[in-house]
Amino acid sequence: MSSKNNRLIYLPLGGAGEIGMNAYVYGYGPQGKERFILVDIGVTFPDMDGSPGVDLIFADISWLVERADRLEAIFITHGHEDHLGALAMALPMLKVPVYTRAFTGNLAVRKLEEKGMNPDVVQVVAPYPHHVEAGPFKVSFLPVSHSIPESSGLVIDTAAGRIVHTGDFKIDETPVVGEAFDHALWGQVAKGGVKALICDSTNVFSPAAGRSEATLAPAIQQLVQKAPKMVVATTFASNVARVKTLAEAGRAAGRQIVLLGRAMRRMVEAAVQSGVLVDFPSTISPEEAATLPRERVMLIVTGSQGERRAASAALSRGKYLGMELEEGDLFLFSSKTIPGNEKEVIRIVNALSERGVDVVDDGADLYHVSGHANRPDLLRMHRLMQPQILIPMHGEHRHLRAHANLARENGIASEIVVNGTMIDLTGDEPRVVEHIEAGRTYKDGSVLIGALDGIVRDRIRLALNGLIIVTLIIDEEDEPLGEPWIELRGLAETGVSGTGFADLVEDDLGQLLNRADDKTLANDDKLEDALRRRVRQMAVEELGRKPEVQVIISRLMS
Amino acid sequence: MSSKNNRLIYLPLGGAGEIGMNAYVYGYGPQGKERFILVDIGVTFPDMDGSPGVDLIFADISWLVERADRLEAIFITHGHEDHLGALAMALPMLKVPVYTRAFTGNLAVRKLEEKGMNPDVVQVVAPYPHHVEAGPFKVSFLPVSHSIPESSGLVIDTAAGRIVHTGDFKIDETPVVGEAFDHALWGQVAKGGVKALICDSTNVFSPAAGRSEATLAPAIQQLVQKAPKMVVATTFASNVARVKTLAEAGRAAGRQIVLLGRAMRRMVEAAVQSGVLVDFPSTISPEEAATLPRERVMLIVTGSQGERRAASAALSRGKYLGMELEEGDLFLFSSKTIPGNEKEVIRIVNALSERGVDVVDDGADLYHVSGHANRPDLLRMHRLMQPQILIPMHGEHRHLRAHANLARENGIASEIVVNGTMIDLTGDEPRVVEHIEAGRTYKDGSVLIGALDGIVRDRIRLALNGLIIVTLIIDEEDEPLGEPWIELRGLAETGVSGTGFADLVEDDLGQLLNRADDKTLANDDKLEDALRRRVRQMAVEELGRKPEVQVIISRLMS
Repeated sequence: MSSKNNRLIYLPLGGAGEIGMNAYVYGYGPQGKERFILVDIGVTFPDMDGSPGVDLIFADISWLVERADRLEAIFITHGHEDHLGALAMALPMLKVPVYTRAFTGNLAVRKLEEKGMNPDVVQVVAPYPHHVEAGPFKVSFLPVSHSIPESSGLVIDTAAGRIVHTGDFKIDETPVVGEAFDHALWGQVAKGGVKALICDSTNVFSPAAGRSEATLAPAIQQLVQKAPKMVVATTFASNVARVKTLAEAGRAAGRQIVLLGRAMRRMVEAAVQSGVLVDFPSTISPEEAATLPRERVMLIVTGSQGERRAASAALSRGKYLGMELEEGDLFLFSSKTIPGNEKEVIRIVNALSERGVDVVDDGADLYHVSGHANRPDLLRMHRLMQPQILIPMHGEHRHLRAHANLARENGIASEIVVNGTMIDLTGDEPRVVEHIEAGRTYKDGSVLIGALDGIVRDRIRLALNGLIIVTLIIDEEDEPLGEPWIELRGLAETGVSGTGFADLVEDDLGQLLNRADDKTLANDDKLEDALRRRVRQMAVEELGRKPEVQVIISRLMS
Repeated sequence: MSSKNNRLIYLPLGGAGEIGMNAYVYGYGPQGKERFILVDIGVTFPDMDGSPGVDLIFADISWLVERADRLEAIFITHGHEDHLGALAMALPMLKVPVYTRAFTGNLAVRKLEEKGMNPDVVQVVAPYPHHVEAGPFKVSFLPVSHSIPESSGLVIDTAAGRIVHTGDFKIDETPVVGEAFDHALWGQVAKGGVKALICDSTNVFSPAAGRSEATLAPAIQQLVQKAPKMVVATTFASNVARVKTLAEAGRAAGRQIVLLGRAMRRMVEAAVQSGVLVDFPSTISPEEAATLPRERVMLIVTGSQGERRAASAALSRGKYLGMELEEGDLFLFSSKTIPGNEKEVIRIVNALSERGVDVVDDGADLYHVSGHANRPDLLRMHRLMQPQILIPMHGEHRHLRAHANLARENGIASEIVVNGTMIDLTGDEPRVVEHIEAGRTYKDGSVLIGALDGIVRDRIRLALNGLIIVTLIIDEEDEPLGEPWIELRGLAETGVSGTGFADLVEDDLGQLLNRADDKTLANDDKLEDALRRRVRQMAVEELGRKPEVQVIISRLMS
């Protein structure tokens, strides 16, 4: 029952301000006593610029953890890492059931089992009109086409109205694997009226209507057919439809198929187990392939984004599992390079070029289609669902803004809601009611740290500046015992004067200590400060740099 | 005079295997006694992935430095940083005259003066048919169109024949500023026969013929004309023609022009001084602009590649020199994002989006043209010059390979010659005669270091792994004095056990020392090794990481 005191809120913790680490909270109930559901809990990937050495990044969910007793459930829309990847890290803090469809569930269970966690928490549910009751929410999985099997939008019913959360989607009537986009079904959901459509914004800048997964088969088949030697194709392993199209092109050209890369084999296995993939061509092992003529082999491999440890990179470098690429082989990127991964992908292309391998990428728009709705497809979705308000998600700020403008230009109200903004959807007009600290959590080895804890910032400083370590012993009478000792990390040993820099600094600091007054020598902070300043000054003079300086003073006790 | 004993060699030290840090050596004379010229000495830019903290990167020229007494001169084809940027660093090691045309010379002189070097070494020369005698070489500057004024190919005549080194080029008959591509002139140079065409490969993957700089003016004018508020446009400052087109579009729309960013003002100044730029619209200062209505102002700014310190980035962050961007302002990227710079550019676009600024980029191919010859233009150049052999340069391996294939498919012999490969061009068939170590030199603060010296690798390790510093005092009797001391850099303070990690390690190492035998305590290497292994093991257990460990043992002397 609705009541004046209840409110319906939406609070993105991740995914509204970046493409990645999706985590969306919905709440319903009296203020401060709302019951919550969490939609998706994904990761984003670290990079050397901002997060060197970090393993994975996900949304800071501490706000939700503090209210974990009010969380009813987690719903995962699909199995991509940016939607599912942080489940094993977040679940111990949240301890609620996880609802998914079968294929996503298969992947979720594998993830939890890998970490030695109990996978019974994952509950596989049937699609709409079946629904899950989660406190004040009735939630249904509404099948939608995307670039992984069994993606779903969510129909979230509350006493304050119906929300449709699209999840990642495209409008594809012939998706090769999995369910086609069902206009009638989505239209049926829209019938009772949609209060808010929370909508994927990824491809809002793509002006032409999206193309179906099925359109790729002829071009891929033709390419593989005419290849004179071995063919290697890479794509996202989770794009099971693409993997199937590639494998079928290989079989049609009389080639035996080898799947290389752990993710590739695991995804195909999960798709078969969960029943979404049938009639996949049989595969052979690399060992078997090595006995065949090159023109009878096709490898389908991981590493479309240039990942250094994936099969693509390994093959570009040399022999891998007995296979070695040669002059005249063909390497197909049936994929798009995600912004930021260009250098890694290009490194592989150049390494393949050095081996004489012919590389074909998606430059001509022949061998890849996106999994997201383009601008005209977004408009179709808006018109189909006719929401009271469109809230763009799954985008950087520029995507959210363009998507909101698109909706408004076509007569639908829209609001940009970024990570950490809590919006009250109860009334006719949405209202921002709170801003919470929305940040990032780093999985750093086996430890979770905050992005702003300074730990990773310190690593970045070490990389940019190098480090000088100064060690010094002070005796029982507060007198230096011997000279300070200098260790350099990441710095040239010799500066502009041509003399060893460490020696120079040791001599100079020795003199500084000789001149230092008793008060300075007796005070660690003062002494440390004096040494650090002098070392930095010398580094500027000799090396033209301002390094990090770590001073370690050991005092002998009487 | 040619003689049987003389040979003509080509040796790229940079630029043939990457786009950047161009440095090409030509030699003529008896083997081991050749006289040399160096064509271009440019930089490439560091990144956090491979060269954190480095200022600039250029080709390792130590091979040439060892033979500096045989170097006749340096020729700079044009003023882009990847061709001119390392001059001030290399010149002190090479000490030869530098030949350029007027605009390039103006930039070269500024560079040397900035470093307090004598600029008299720079000699400005007239274009072809004028030539410079440099030992056995006669070298002419052959005007060519590109994206900076006064770019030139080089006609390099030797007793063994004529080489044409294209430099960076496009075929542009209406370049807005500077000389149009002169088919007749290039054809005339080809007449006597071209032994080798050393040819720009940058755009070999662009299938359509290139467009002229002049084609941009109407679209840019229309865009600026209809902008309701302030307009900001960014492009490479060195693209003086583009800066002029932008400024003229502003003036045509009744706007006053402000140039922001040091490079922007310097380039326009150099272009006016050297006579290549005339009729540039008058400009006003930011202070003056602040007094005008927004719709009467247009800023032309540096930072098209997202550089953090450039004007674009500053404007995206907030107030800059009294100017602040607002809702409804227009920001035009009249530029293409160089691969690898995507994240930085996107960061600016998102920051502008948050301010409500409308961003227009070159997605629709309306507001930017490339400065390099596309595939059909390369073919035109091959046919015009009809060389005995085409040697692709200015490209990654994939570009060089595709360019060589293009030439061969059209009946011209071609050879891929990568950095460090010395090729003998004397006979009818080019021959690889030597491979020399081709590497990279880092300008790191005021020091030059080798890319493989390990210094920068150490910084990368610190960033990826973090650092644990262990300090320990051993007394005169080879006994530990107190416990070891632990400092953490870039590592979490608490691991999975929930106890302070430094405390844990100090206790544990204390016990290790108690158990250690006299032999270990007396031997620094053994002791260091034991401590390092134990610390790493504990880090794996507690933090799930393998950090760098620096052990510093201080021994008290009796």
